Amino acid sequence: MKVFVINGPNLNLLGTREPAIYGYETLEDVAERCRELGAEHGMDIEFRQSNFEGQLVEWIQEAIGTADAIIINAAAYTHTSVAIYDALKSYHGYKIELHISHPHLREPFRQTSYVAPVVDGVVAGFGTSGYCHIIGLLPELLAKD
Amino acid sequence: MKVFVINGPNLNLLGTREPAIYGYETLEDVAERCRELGAEHGMDIEFRQSNFEGQLVEWIQEAIGTADAIIINAAAYTHTSVAIYDALKSYHGYKIELHISHPHLREPFRQTSYVAPVVDGVVAGFGTSGYCHIIGLLPELLAKD
Amino acid sequence: MKVFVINGPNLNLLGTREPAIYGYETLEDVAERCRELGAEHGMDIEFRQSNFEGQLVEWIQEAIGTADAIIINAAAYTHTSVAIYDALKSYHGYKIELHISHPHLREPFRQTSYVAPVVDGVVAGFGTSGYCHIIGLLPELLAKD
Amino acid sequence: MKVFVINGPNLNLLGTREPAIYGYETLEDVAERCRELGAEHGMDIEFRQSNFEGQLVEWIQEAIGTADAIIINAAAYTHTSVAIYDALKSYHGYKIELHISHPHLREPFRQTSYVAPVVDGVVAGFGTSGYCHIIGLLPELLAKD
Amino acid sequence: MKVFVINGPNLNLLGTREPAIYGYETLEDVAERCRELGAEHGMDIEFRQSNFEGQLVEWIQEAIGTADAIIINAAAYTHTSVAIYDALKSYHGYKIELHISHPHLREPFRQTSYVAPVVDGVVAGFGTSGYCHIIGLLPELLAKD
Amino acid sequence: MKVFVINGPNLNLLGTREPAIYGYETLEDVAERCRELGAEHGMDIEFRQSNFEGQLVEWIQEAIGTADAIIINAAAYTHTSVAIYDALKSYHGYKIELHISHPHLREPFRQTSYVAPVVDGVVAGFGTSGYCHIIGLLPELLAKD
Amino acid sequence: MKVFVINGPNLNLLGTREPAIYGYETLEDVAERCRELGAEHGMDIEFRQSNFEGQLVEWIQEAIGTADAIIINAAAYTHTSVAIYDALKSYHGYKIELHISHPHLREPFRQTSYVAPVVDGVVAGFGTSGYCHIIGLLPELLAKD
Amino acid sequence: MKVFVINGPNLNLLGTREPAIYGYETLEDVAERCRELGAEHGMDIEFRQSNFEGQLVEWIQEAIGTADAIIINAAAYTHTSVAIYDALKSYHGYKIELHISHPHLREPFRQTSYVAPVVDGVVAGFGTSGYCHIIGLLPELLAKD
Amino acid sequence: MKVFVINGPNLNLLGTREPAIYGYETLEDVAERCRELGAEHGMDIEFRQSNFEGQLVEWIQEAIGTADAIIINAAAYTHTSVAIYDALKSYHGYKIELHISHPHLREPFRQTSYVAPVVDGVVAGFGTSGYCHIIGLLPELLAKD
Amino acid sequence: MKVFVINGPNLNLLGTREPAIYGYETLEDVAERCRELGAEHGMDIEFRQSNFEGQLVEWIQEAIGTADAIIINAAAYTHTSVAIYDALKSYHGYKIELHISHPHLREPFRQTSYVAPVVDGVVAGFGTSGYCHIIGLLPELLAKD
Amino acid sequence: MKVFVINGPNLNLLGTREPAIYGYETLEDVAERCRELGAEHGMDIEFRQSNFEGQLVEWIQEAIGTADAIIINAAAYTHTSVAIYDALKSYHGYKIELHISHPHLREPFRQTSYVAPVVDGVVAGFGTSGYCHIIGLLPELLAKD
Amino acid sequence: MKVFVINGPNLNLLGTREPAIYGYETLEDVAERCRELGAEHGMDIEFRQSNFEGQLVEWIQEAIGTADAIIINAAAYTHTSVAIYDALKSYHGYKIELHISHPHLREPFRQTSYVAPVVDGVVAGFGTSGYCHIIGLLPELLAKD
Repeated sequence: MKVFVINGPNLNLLGTREPAIYGYETLEDVAERCRELGAEHGMDIEFRQSNFEGQLVEWIQEAIGTADAIIINAAAYTHTSVAIYDALKSYHGYKIELHISHPHLREPFRQTSYVAPVVDGVVAGFGTSGYCHIIGLLPELLAKD
Repeated sequence: MKVFVINGPNLNLLGTREPAIYGYETLEDVAERCRELGAEHGMDIEFRQSNFEGQLVEWIQEAIGTADAIIINAAAYTHTSVAIYDALKSYHGYKIELHISHPHLREPFRQTSYVAPVVDGVVAGFGTSGYCHIIGLLPELLAKD
Repeated sequence: MKVFVINGPNLNLLGTREPAIYGYETLEDVAERCRELGAEHGMDIEFRQSNFEGQLVEWIQEAIGTADAIIINAAAYTHTSVAIYDALKSYHGYKIELHISHPHLREPFRQTSYVAPVVDGVVAGFGTSGYCHIIGLLPELLAKD
Repeated sequence: MKVFVINGPNLNLLGTREPAIYGYETLEDVAERCRELGAEHGMDIEFRQSNFEGQLVEWIQEAIGTADAIIINAAAYTHTSVAIYDALKSYHGYKIELHISHPHLREPFRQTSYVAPVVDGVVAGFGTSGYCHIIGLLPELLAKD
Repeated sequence: MKVFVINGPNLNLLGTREPAIYGYETLEDVAERCRELGAEHGMDIEFRQSNFEGQLVEWIQEAIGTADAIIINAAAYTHTSVAIYDALKSYHGYKIELHISHPHLREPFRQTSYVAPVVDGVVAGFGTSGYCHIIGLLPELLAKD
Repeated sequence: MKVFVINGPNLNLLGTREPAIYGYETLEDVAERCRELGAEHGMDIEFRQSNFEGQLVEWIQEAIGTADAIIINAAAYTHTSVAIYDALKSYHGYKIELHISHPHLREPFRQTSYVAPVVDGVVAGFGTSGYCHIIGLLPELLAKD
Repeated sequence: MKVFVINGPNLNLLGTREPAIYGYETLEDVAERCRELGAEHGMDIEFRQSNFEGQLVEWIQEAIGTADAIIINAAAYTHTSVAIYDALKSYHGYKIELHISHPHLREPFRQTSYVAPVVDGVVAGFGTSGYCHIIGLLPELLAKD
Repeated sequence: MKVFVINGPNLNLLGTREPAIYGYETLEDVAERCRELGAEHGMDIEFRQSNFEGQLVEWIQEAIGTADAIIINAAAYTHTSVAIYDALKSYHGYKIELHISHPHLREPFRQTSYVAPVVDGVVAGFGTSGYCHIIGLLPELLAKD
Repeated sequence: MKVFVINGPNLNLLGTREPAIYGYETLEDVAERCRELGAEHGMDIEFRQSNFEGQLVEWIQEAIGTADAIIINAAAYTHTSVAIYDALKSYHGYKIELHISHPHLREPFRQTSYVAPVVDGVVAGFGTSGYCHIIGLLPELLAKD
Repeated sequence: MKVFVINGPNLNLLGTREPAIYGYETLEDVAERCRELGAEHGMDIEFRQSNFEGQLVEWIQEAIGTADAIIINAAAYTHTSVAIYDALKSYHGYKIELHISHPHLREPFRQTSYVAPVVDGVVAGFGTSGYCHIIGLLPELLAKD
Repeated sequence: MKVFVINGPNLNLLGTREPAIYGYETLEDVAERCRELGAEHGMDIEFRQSNFEGQLVEWIQEAIGTADAIIINAAAYTHTSVAIYDALKSYHGYKIELHISHPHLREPFRQTSYVAPVVDGVVAGFGTSGYCHIIGLLPELLAKD
Repeated sequence: MKVFVINGPNLNLLGTREPAIYGYETLEDVAERCRELGAEHGMDIEFRQSNFEGQLVEWIQEAIGTADAIIINAAAYTHTSVAIYDALKSYHGYKIELHISHPHLREPFRQTSYVAPVVDGVVAGFGTSGYCHIIGLLPELLAKD
């Protein structure tokens, strides 16, 4: 079973800015935890990050026919990208939107989401551990789906 | 450790309408699963439902100084109740908003939420199993908090 | 054949305030006329009023599997209650929205209706006689439905 | 007693399109039923249809000083015609707005109504029988008015 | 010198409704006064009224190359007719918008005007005498133009 | 002379949360002060609190024909309750809206008020002492009214 | 094969105003070119123009069961006519919206279109030749449809 | 008979800027013409200009009980001054709003008017001659009023 | 102890217009009552009125370092003056907004307030006696502050 | 003669998803048809696709001084890209916007277009054949331009 | 070369309030620095401040034909004054808008600017030194202009 | 001292389009002037341009811990990029937003800025010389910061 974990712009800074809010864990640390947990459950975790909207679109396209699930944290592009919306609509596997902090607690322009209408579930506010929670639940979720 | 699971209007109909979407599990079935899982983790699960906004407010007030966490599925009152917003602001324990189906996929008036701005995390779209997922994660979440 | 006539907040004041607009007939007078007319047509009329949103929700739930039709005058809750909207969606019998005076002629916030989108028909502006008109027509309407 | 039943654009297609929704009854069939029922109650029913806004305005003007009541189904012009609004304001007899299907269930631009603010009552969602219901009730309604 | 005075829907009722506001003078009386005053100033006054939007459009078109000025009281079509807006834009003579009562004092939908942006001047609130005032001033206005 | 002091949701928590803002005085303390001051002025103070919208509606109805004045702090229901708006409109005695803190300094949804349009006066921002200030002024206000 | 080409208000002025933008070709010239080109492709072109909304509605109704396709340039009524929207919805043949100039380049009220949601395709900005382009393509388009 | 002609900010620049639009006539020239014409009709014309909102308010107050009519060109304050709105409401004589150019042809913020709702009539787009036209008509208008 | 009572535009007309609403008491009468009551409580009342926004700004500035409290009835400038908002923000003494009538009962543009967000309390709807009520309460309010 | 055909995000999936709507033809198939048809008319067709907004911008820049026309189907970037709007404004050749399906029939955010205001014409709803139709017409369109 | 530096309401408080944000430099200190720097560059600096909108309007008018440039910090009137907008439009010299702090970082009503659309450039966020920066650059800017 | 000057989409066309507005200076000319002036002040100027949003994000990230200041002209991405907003928030050095022409004078969608809320200052409307002005002032600005 293959799972894409796709991360959007500025998430590569994780662990280097505002540790009081986001902690000292870097995105690579998170990726490592996800890959290990995935291996335990027999999942091959493809963990990626890009600052380019076009690259995120192409990774979602790559997941078509390849991956059983996408976990996407589109970060800033969540609020502006119709292209990601269109790509996600073309992917018919299981799709979960993830945010590290709670998206409703910030600026008003973060209330528009082009990801939410085209995913199966949303998880927000559980910090970097949210990635692992979802991966741990995926076997059960995909079994039911 | 005590946890309140508070359910809003019409959730008492669960398992009796639109099973294609919501399944055949009743709210009492869910409560039973939650209580059992809670017991395994040493948690006392207080699982309740009311169709009255004032009752939900009073249960949240009851949780102050009593419960370590609230899982709230305010259903229709999510979108209209400032009273629940005020009550949740007065509760300083761990708070999670839960929806059975994905709230972004429905009528526009469901996009306003008076619960989201005053909780720590959101979980939506994982069906009735979402309750159990959160309860399973609570020991870890509360440890970190 | 059983019919629920459900009345919302402040309708219990009917006949006691602004008789120039609403007449001297009390809600109990209306209920009596409805029950008598219903009896003539072989209908059992369950005529109720509450000032509590939660109570109206529970009466609509009670009508599921019990009543052939609901006539609902949700009064103020017409304009604010998503909970009533959800309850009415779960009731699959015949549903009619009724207003004593013409709702378009008043304050702007009365132009939002959470009842209208989930009923089969609307009758407004015929005074307290509107209840009887609908009851008189129900045999024909339900036959066709 | 004379009653104008005024029908707006595209209602001449009634019975020829989407019979699943609107039935096989043509507007002429409806007119016939109305005239017969009117005759039984001693009412002279003037049943008309036009696709021209200006024509509807002139028929409403013609009703001034001529007819005791107007039943108007302005169809598409309901949502766009200030001219019909002005004409109806000049008519001081009894005025009822009628819609065959429930107008709240359709496109957003159908939520604006230039007819509703200037009539005494509204009936919607009772199919083509709505015309007859109103005509049957008119003697009582006009007596009270 | 030829002048078109074009009147829109329901103005044919002038002098027959709400005399307290609009006076007892009929539109034909106004036309007569306009024609006489026009004759004194050597102007040929073409005074017309229609309830049909299309007819008003065609009279404005007729004025192209024929009339030196248009005085237009489009009444209800002022607020809804893009067709009249387009027709007036094609007429390059002198154009004045006239309203008998003050248009700002009424319903909100009367604040949109498709006539105002394509005329040279506006006169409102001077009653039926406004027509004569403008005609009296036209020789001077056209001389300057 | 009888006065109803009606308090809405979460005001029962007064004195137990955020004392830096709201002080240590409980709602019962406030009630006691009000009753004593009322007694000095020969007023019978009926001081009540409920978290249920329907209960507040019924207390306002109870005041009709019973009480000379209502002081209402509807708290969260101030911003959402058309039912309270309707009930207050039916009460023709003296009505004052009271808020402990200044309502304009908080969330945007607190700027809508269904209480303000149907009361005689507003007092906000004077803390729990505001209740006493109003009661002290009532004899003068009612004398003038 | 029969095709209706339906033109709305003020298009009869074509070729007589603003030739810098619209050219010197009159609507009759365009009609002639269309008819000739249609004849070459074995199509009977019914080319019409009216300034009356009601007339356009009736021509669309006439096309039902008569014509294989409608090319409609509703001009000003594009932006205001729900009646044309309803008529076009009742016509189930091939429907194309055409504009001579580019409609997005003009006044804001031209951005609302009641024609676009109920046609199969849109062509705008190709001048009067747009009519011929569409007619030339129709055999292929209808074959595929 | 006394008439106040009150002019707002920047009108003192008249005749010195953009003569292509506003002409070479200065405000003092206009005042002179108004005074002379007024004298002919037995009117005492008080012609004033100020760039201060407070000054305009005080001149309107001065007119109370002193002047039979106010002609006001509030210029920029037309669109921003509630204080002028309040002052005009306190003046119960005849009130006319005047604009030299057509106010609908300019920036969107000029579409809000705090003067229009509290005057009897509006004249716009007749250049500086508009002042004289109104003064010439005042005897007739006041006679009728 | 020094207190500034600052009154905005048109309040100098008090007692001279609409006595049915505002009473026959002039602003000077109110000032006299305030000064006397202030003297009883050992307060020096500086009671002023201006129709100029700039003057109100300068009086608020004058109060900085001079007065213990400001009672401000900014009248029309309440709804339009950012300059008064800025001045009040620079004054750190006790600030109360006062309105003679209830501001929520009037035109929509009176619902915007640039005074409310920068004062400590609001009193509205108590007529001209509101000034005295506040002055009577000030010793207690300032003691607590 | 050189023509750029520029395709935006997710169009590389053409022919692989939702064939019921988009058919089985891939974007490369379309490119091939375009190139062949172009060759017949002596046109060199540069057919490209990218998922990167920046790449589309650079191709439009490349067309400056190189290509006689641009046919652009910006897909999702149509609705979000000011950068493409700016690039197209810098290109002064012939520009046509193309959409395979009808853009008005989908989600509301597709009603904003940053392409439409800066092109000469629009073609939408003709499927993948739309590309060929435009290429076939280009010789005539460019001749006239 | 003459330059007007025009300052709006409350800027006379500079250096006396919130020194943490605005520093201890008074407006007179700034004026002195500006005059000295101006003298070095052969510029006569006219540095003024007023709390009256009308005064600012008159100073801008005074600059017409007198000054080569205006530097304007309209403070609160930036967001509310159409009169200043009109005055600045009449001044055809070089115009620069200046703000001490960054205007986008504050209340929403500060996002409307009636100054920005009628100036040549904007400088914001450079503290009181911004005045000197602009004066230092003016010789170069005016040379180019 | 190191300074990043980051330029967004289409600025590489500078000097090649609309020289009447933007002049004949190319972006490379500007870069050269900036580098030379920087060298005079002992600053190392990193001058870059990209049409890719992701690239701009990465350059801002690169500046973290590397550069003392960023001057950013994000061009079109100013109005659409939340990703750049997020990146700039993570950079804690000195940040200035620069626009060559005045951004308020253009299309409405240019009034939204995702750059302004996260920079220290704004400079707009000084042409390409604006870059040099800022660089010349940086030593002083950074000294004070």
